[in-house]
Amino acid sequence: MKKILILNGPNLNLQGKRDTNIYGTTTFEEYIEELSIRYANKVEIAYMQSNIEGELINAIHQSVGKYDGIVFNAGGYTHTSVALRDAISAVATPVIEVHISSILAREEFRHISMLAPVAKGSIMGFGLDSYRLGIEALLD
Amino acid sequence: MKKILILNGPNLNLQGKRDTNIYGTTTFEEYIEELSIRYANKVEIAYMQSNIEGELINAIHQSVGKYDGIVFNAGGYTHTSVALRDAISAVATPVIEVHISSILAREEFRHISMLAPVAKGSIMGFGLDSYRLGIEALLD
Amino acid sequence: MKKILILNGPNLNLQGKRDTNIYGTTTFEEYIEELSIRYANKVEIAYMQSNIEGELINAIHQSVGKYDGIVFNAGGYTHTSVALRDAISAVATPVIEVHISSILAREEFRHISMLAPVAKGSIMGFGLDSYRLGIEALLD
Amino acid sequence: MKKILILNGPNLNLQGKRDTNIYGTTTFEEYIEELSIRYANKVEIAYMQSNIEGELINAIHQSVGKYDGIVFNAGGYTHTSVALRDAISAVATPVIEVHISSILAREEFRHISMLAPVAKGSIMGFGLDSYRLGIEALLD
Amino acid sequence: MKKILILNGPNLNLQGKRDTNIYGTTTFEEYIEELSIRYANKVEIAYMQSNIEGELINAIHQSVGKYDGIVFNAGGYTHTSVALRDAISAVATPVIEVHISSILAREEFRHISMLAPVAKGSIMGFGLDSYRLGIEALLD
Amino acid sequence: MKKILILNGPNLNLQGKRDTNIYGTTTFEEYIEELSIRYANKVEIAYMQSNIEGELINAIHQSVGKYDGIVFNAGGYTHTSVALRDAISAVATPVIEVHISSILAREEFRHISMLAPVAKGSIMGFGLDSYRLGIEALLD
Amino acid sequence: MKKILILNGPNLNLQGKRDTNIYGTTTFEEYIEELSIRYANKVEIAYMQSNIEGELINAIHQSVGKYDGIVFNAGGYTHTSVALRDAISAVATPVIEVHISSILAREEFRHISMLAPVAKGSIMGFGLDSYRLGIEALLD
Amino acid sequence: MKKILILNGPNLNLQGKRDTNIYGTTTFEEYIEELSIRYANKVEIAYMQSNIEGELINAIHQSVGKYDGIVFNAGGYTHTSVALRDAISAVATPVIEVHISSILAREEFRHISMLAPVAKGSIMGFGLDSYRLGIEALLD
Amino acid sequence: MKKILILNGPNLNLQGKRDTNIYGTTTFEEYIEELSIRYANKVEIAYMQSNIEGELINAIHQSVGKYDGIVFNAGGYTHTSVALRDAISAVATPVIEVHISSILAREEFRHISMLAPVAKGSIMGFGLDSYRLGIEALLD
Amino acid sequence: MKKILILNGPNLNLQGKRDTNIYGTTTFEEYIEELSIRYANKVEIAYMQSNIEGELINAIHQSVGKYDGIVFNAGGYTHTSVALRDAISAVATPVIEVHISSILAREEFRHISMLAPVAKGSIMGFGLDSYRLGIEALLD
Amino acid sequence: MKKILILNGPNLNLQGKRDTNIYGTTTFEEYIEELSIRYANKVEIAYMQSNIEGELINAIHQSVGKYDGIVFNAGGYTHTSVALRDAISAVATPVIEVHISSILAREEFRHISMLAPVAKGSIMGFGLDSYRLGIEALLD
Amino acid sequence: MKKILILNGPNLNLQGKRDTNIYGTTTFEEYIEELSIRYANKVEIAYMQSNIEGELINAIHQSVGKYDGIVFNAGGYTHTSVALRDAISAVATPVIEVHISSILAREEFRHISMLAPVAKGSIMGFGLDSYRLGIEALLD
Repeated sequence: MKKILILNGPNLNLQGKRDTNIYGTTTFEEYIEELSIRYANKVEIAYMQSNIEGELINAIHQSVGKYDGIVFNAGGYTHTSVALRDAISAVATPVIEVHISSILAREEFRHISMLAPVAKGSIMGFGLDSYRLGIEALLD
Repeated sequence: MKKILILNGPNLNLQGKRDTNIYGTTTFEEYIEELSIRYANKVEIAYMQSNIEGELINAIHQSVGKYDGIVFNAGGYTHTSVALRDAISAVATPVIEVHISSILAREEFRHISMLAPVAKGSIMGFGLDSYRLGIEALLD
Repeated sequence: MKKILILNGPNLNLQGKRDTNIYGTTTFEEYIEELSIRYANKVEIAYMQSNIEGELINAIHQSVGKYDGIVFNAGGYTHTSVALRDAISAVATPVIEVHISSILAREEFRHISMLAPVAKGSIMGFGLDSYRLGIEALLD
Repeated sequence: MKKILILNGPNLNLQGKRDTNIYGTTTFEEYIEELSIRYANKVEIAYMQSNIEGELINAIHQSVGKYDGIVFNAGGYTHTSVALRDAISAVATPVIEVHISSILAREEFRHISMLAPVAKGSIMGFGLDSYRLGIEALLD
Repeated sequence: MKKILILNGPNLNLQGKRDTNIYGTTTFEEYIEELSIRYANKVEIAYMQSNIEGELINAIHQSVGKYDGIVFNAGGYTHTSVALRDAISAVATPVIEVHISSILAREEFRHISMLAPVAKGSIMGFGLDSYRLGIEALLD
Repeated sequence: MKKILILNGPNLNLQGKRDTNIYGTTTFEEYIEELSIRYANKVEIAYMQSNIEGELINAIHQSVGKYDGIVFNAGGYTHTSVALRDAISAVATPVIEVHISSILAREEFRHISMLAPVAKGSIMGFGLDSYRLGIEALLD
Repeated sequence: MKKILILNGPNLNLQGKRDTNIYGTTTFEEYIEELSIRYANKVEIAYMQSNIEGELINAIHQSVGKYDGIVFNAGGYTHTSVALRDAISAVATPVIEVHISSILAREEFRHISMLAPVAKGSIMGFGLDSYRLGIEALLD
Repeated sequence: MKKILILNGPNLNLQGKRDTNIYGTTTFEEYIEELSIRYANKVEIAYMQSNIEGELINAIHQSVGKYDGIVFNAGGYTHTSVALRDAISAVATPVIEVHISSILAREEFRHISMLAPVAKGSIMGFGLDSYRLGIEALLD
Repeated sequence: MKKILILNGPNLNLQGKRDTNIYGTTTFEEYIEELSIRYANKVEIAYMQSNIEGELINAIHQSVGKYDGIVFNAGGYTHTSVALRDAISAVATPVIEVHISSILAREEFRHISMLAPVAKGSIMGFGLDSYRLGIEALLD
Repeated sequence: MKKILILNGPNLNLQGKRDTNIYGTTTFEEYIEELSIRYANKVEIAYMQSNIEGELINAIHQSVGKYDGIVFNAGGYTHTSVALRDAISAVATPVIEVHISSILAREEFRHISMLAPVAKGSIMGFGLDSYRLGIEALLD
Repeated sequence: MKKILILNGPNLNLQGKRDTNIYGTTTFEEYIEELSIRYANKVEIAYMQSNIEGELINAIHQSVGKYDGIVFNAGGYTHTSVALRDAISAVATPVIEVHISSILAREEFRHISMLAPVAKGSIMGFGLDSYRLGIEALLD
Repeated sequence: MKKILILNGPNLNLQGKRDTNIYGTTTFEEYIEELSIRYANKVEIAYMQSNIEGELINAIHQSVGKYDGIVFNAGGYTHTSVALRDAISAVATPVIEVHISSILAREEFRHISMLAPVAKGSIMGFGLDSYRLGIEALLD
């Protein structure tokens, strides 16, 4: 059984609590539950969220030897964080970059991903389903 | 059963015939075969490739009422083609943008995708597996 | 009686079939009909549409000695095609550039017209009426 | 009968008095005369020219309820004036942007039109005939 | 005897009344007096200042047949005014561009002169003496 | 009692007459009335509006010794006027820059303020209340 | 009585301890005291400062239902933080952006505010008084 | 004997038929004839021209095992075509880029060659003789 | 005896544990040990590392009166952190910027140092020896 | 009597020998002769030309205590030479920058002068007369 | 018999002495020897190399009436030297620009050639053979 | 004993003779003397300065087999010289780039170092002490 960390960056703790008519009322805690059931015998899913850039770096460092992969949504840090990019480069754990919406379809300052060049791959625009596709990508 | 078109742009007809140590010797014809078997009872897969931009536009136009979705790798046209972008916007068929490698990890002129803002979602960097993830995205 | 070619580029074959609440249900075939009646004794109107850049180039080349002018909407090729620009420069036939909407009021990548500097003049933003104004411009 | 204001910006008062081998010896006063005759029973044409940006703004403000449309050549203010753009946005009178030559075929600082995004449409490159096409556009 | 117009743009009416420790207490009225005496039998000097861009354009238009040259400091309009540039191009009167300080040694937005390409020549950085050098240039 | 000039640039004369569902039906004349009552014993408020850049420069020049401060909304001239910037630098009167909406939340060409670096301070985004805050800033 | 949070970002804990000849010796603790007295019966003022971006995000999240508004000086994070921008967009609490000096009058990298487009309004350049004006803006 | 393909892109079919005072009246058919005679016992020369980008890609793909090299003038596609660049990279056939005039001496949008980085070498500015030098380069 | 703080930013905690064939197996703990011995009677060396930007700011603030200088490698925060720059400006402690590799020889987004303009000096490219040179610089 | 050095940079040794229909057949040697006669009792004129950037730097260094001013045309080094700029800054001798034609009216790469910000003043566009105006500027 | 100068710029004196596994051990002296033999009865070849920009300018000036053409590799001066460009424009001698490798396939700062627009033609990417092709180009 | 060349570029010959209140009255000759004494038994120091770019290139070429390293301050050539960069790449001698002040803290055109990417390391901002640190770096 594979061990996968779903790692969420800034503001993603508000999912399910705001703009519920758009994003639905499913919180991440509930969604992780669903995923855990769906991949019950195949994947052990851990979840962590932080608004602090350095704590996300710590989480990536500590993934070594503990997880088979990370499905990572860095939120607003995606576009500017050289430090997160260096963290991903520094560890052997494969990291899949995911985004709920397409960053290329939003404001221009979101068009650049500092992380994509060092991630194993990128998935964006599929709503919460982007996370499930990230798990699929790690399984194959 | 869903009907999905896998649509390939310029130079992708050479897959399996060049740089085989990197990309393997699997041609697209063989890979489509594999996918057809894997999704046997769920998806009917059609395949088309063209090096001509206008023929890709035609294919997108003709997808209406015929396919439930397109998994589209526009190759080198991804970065400059306003016409393909307009074609995707003009039809109701959902289009998933896929790339074998991460366009953000290559030369700077490949960093821009004209198609991502109008595609339903984008998947890149997973090798041929990007196409399978595209099908997964259309199924959910 | 003058002979004028109305030449349409990519995706304009869908006019009247999509976004009909905005653009109306008039197809180009019907609109050309209307124009032919309106200019019955003054202009013989020919119509051609292609999604393939090179076929548009061919049409411009073949206009020499056959048409007194071209009313040309290059669609998405307007913004990037050096080859179409060179084709217009290479022939003596006067070419009027037209656009249904104002390219300067849309996304930034549409602000540049490669064709305007070599066209006889440009008309944009008047809906289908831009084509009629193009004919008017060729008549005077 | 429609009432249309032809509004000219800086330096256009010199038409017919300079570079007469290029632009001809027709002054705007004479040209307005010609247009008035041509559209005798259809359009009542008023004419105004000013070299002062703020007076052009005033003229646009005062057009409300007085004219059915403005054919406007903002001359050198076209490329930089946010204030004229705001004036056009602020009034209900439809404004047609016209230019004697194609601004896209001249120096790079003339390539941008601040006005096109808020004008009803733009016509450029047809010499003085651009004004007549502007009237045609307002009539249909 | 030559007739020369010294034409000053925005804010230059304050010369001699502000920052007198830097610019001195000589007003333009006094300075024109000095110049008139110095060039008594050679040049008849006229002086005009306006804060309104369009009035400067008017002054340039009206110089034709009246002055043998203009020594012109367009102040803050130097860097953005296409309309003043067009006015200078449109008249036969030679125009010398002058600046009290060097525009290239100040803020970046002052580095560009819209007027230099159409002026007969440019002189900058010599304080009020730039105007005298402008007269010298017109005399030779 | 302090004397304050509220100075408005281009198009602000239309306040209360357009987009009344957004901006309300309060004209500037009525708003100045309200402010005069509110600050009855503390501030004497003068009001001036012009669409002509040079007249705004004149107003700033003439404020010296007459007003204790200016609350200035330069409208569309904010983004390009070097001449207005120089006028503000040249006088001792403190100038507060105000905007009804946030210029940084609108089109990119409105993101730059030529005036902010020389104004005493800037207030934007509070609707008409921006003016009252400007007066508050001058009082403290 | 309204409840307002004054939220300070990086390095603002040093206020009153450095460059005291410029900024004075008033610390933020003392200044908050003064404001609390001044607005004694109208506003209950809370104060928080952090050098950690993620803690500022947490504070914004936790303001919901607790404060009627935030007067926020994000210091050096103003110019780059997409994450703080997203936090402000995500909550219903109105946020007023304030700066002690004018960011547009300092180095070029400080000219951009990531927060202004999502803040209710922005106030800058008035020294510590910018905070009081922020409170005034929330009261009206 | 070596086999070399001379491959021409858009608008080069017009050579010898337009601007004959500049380019001469020699058509490509005639010039290929001349070259065939000159290199009679050394090179077998094939010729192909197309205005369609995708057909040029096809020609490059099909060159493998058939030609010892390609002398390629991509015309207007030179400056924008990622797809042609990828085609050249994908095949083992050495490709020499040629241009009749120097692309660096023309309009700025022609300064960039997408093909040069993947071509074996580039030759430009020698008129039709650029093609002969391309053959020379392949022979050595 | 001088007191010097060696301060390390994000990801530098991994030194000696990754890419050991390039960077060697010396961890920072061991290297600090070496330096402490080498400068035994001259410098008392303290060491701190954090992945959290705000904790680095705190460390810089707290250096006042405690250390005679800081040898600072801000890692990925070097290129974007206005907040760290402000922290360095705000304290009297001299800060030497060091980098293991030359930031100007790596990816373009690493070419800019936000810290160099406010640091006492910068040293880069000498591997771990950059830190020793930083100490040398503080000693002289 | 003042001592002035006229210093010429690259290619100016060809004056009078090329494009004689434009620039005339006057060589610099002859022109210096003329100037020497004209300013016979007022200025002692020395002349030097070099195509080598470093020799021009040497000449500027050696001017100290020897000349009262330099009239300097740096030719093609004007636009790129930081070293010449530093040389001018380093010496007390006033340096007047001159150009035969207006650098702002030529190709874009000539629009920047590295020297203007450190020169006492700049004169351009007056043909050889620019040098005489440079002497005039040094005399006053 | 034609006289041709092969002119080499900075660092090309090291050819054959460094990176011999890439560039071979042939020095320029030996290569010129080879070329002289190959073109024995057709071309008299002269050779000159200098690391000093101004000496290359001198060589170009002195070519007039002495050589029938120059095959010129300006090395690192290619990308920045306005002075060398002006030298080539100033003389009648045809100059062929050559480069050993393709400048468009190397770092971005090498993509620009200041010389190409004024050279008769450019040849690059063929190793030392670029020089021979340059001679061929001058012969035809 | 190591042999080290201290190599100085343009204008550094003036050290100690200008701005002596800032840079002190120590000339380079005196400073080299000091360094020679300080490193008496460890390093043999040679010194060379030139204002001519090509002579600096020559010096770098001739260092091979003669010096164990170069401490190089290229002055104003740092920011533009591709030729010096190529010279450093071409030789095996390690080159340390030094600057008296921090190039990143000065004008924007000094922010780029062409040499840093090919130098062994860079040291800047420490005044003359930068040279001593350069020697230290070569010793370790």
